Amino acid sequence: MLGMKREIKLSELDFDKGGGLLPVVVQDIHSKEVLMLAYADESAVRATLSTGLAHYHSRSRGKLWMKGEQSGNVQKVRKILVDCDNDSLIYVVEQKGVACHTGNWSCFFGEIVFSEESR
Amino acid sequence: MLGMKREIKLSELDFDKGGGLLPVVVQDIHSKEVLMLAYADESAVRATLSTGLAHYHSRSRGKLWMKGEQSGNVQKVRKILVDCDNDSLIYVVEQKGVACHTGNWSCFFGEIVFSEESR
Repeated sequence: MLGMKREIKLSELDFDKGGGLLPVVVQDIHSKEVLMLAYADESAVRATLSTGLAHYHSRSRGKLWMKGEQSGNVQKVRKILVDCDNDSLIYVVEQKGVACHTGNWSCFFGEIVFSEESR
Repeated sequence: MLGMKREIKLSELDFDKGGGLLPVVVQDIHSKEVLMLAYADESAVRATLSTGLAHYHSRSRGKLWMKGEQSGNVQKVRKILVDCDNDSLIYVVEQKGVACHTGNWSCFFGEIVFSEESR
C-alpha cells in the first residue's frame, strides 16, 4: 500500500480504449455509496471541471448531458479520481435529491443473488 | 428514496450496449472504497457466481481472468449489485492484499485537480 497520489491532467486521460468514452463511477462523498455509473468524453470532463457540476456523455442521446438538467438533481463534484491506467474516473459528489431516475437514492438497488436460480 | 431491492437474474443483464461487456465497479465491503473498475462478460459473471471469487474479462488479453490468479490478491465477492438499466455491476468484495498492480490498495490514486493547469 503506497501512499502516493498522482496529479493527472485532462490531456493524459486515455479515451481511446472506450471509443472516446470513459466510465465514470459516481460516489457520494458522505456515505461513500456508489450512486450510478455513467460515461464521459473529453468535453464532459472539461464541462465538469469548469462548472463543478457533473457532466456526462449520454450514449443513448449521443450528446453532452448535465446531471439534473431536467430533474434538478445536480451533483456537485468535489474530486475527480483517476485509475492507474488513466481510463476510468470517479466523480466524488454531493448529490442533490436522488441519483436515480426511478426515485432511488442510488441506481444500484438491484442484486444478483448467489443461488442456483440466478445462474 | 424508495427502499425496494430488485432481485436480478443473470439472463436479465443487458450485455448488448457494451459489446458483450458490462463495467464492474469493485468496492471494498469494509471501507466502501472503490478499488478498481473492470469489465465482465456473461461467462465472467457466471464464474464469479459459481466460485465466489471475482472474475472479469480482460480487454487487453481478450479472455476470462480471475483477479489474483497471478498475484494471489483474490477478491471474495459478497454481493453483486445491478443498476436500474441492468447494464452496470458492483462487486462488493473482501480484497486480499491490494487491488492495484502498482501495489496501491486502490487503483484510483490519481486525481484531476480543478485548476487552470489541468484543463
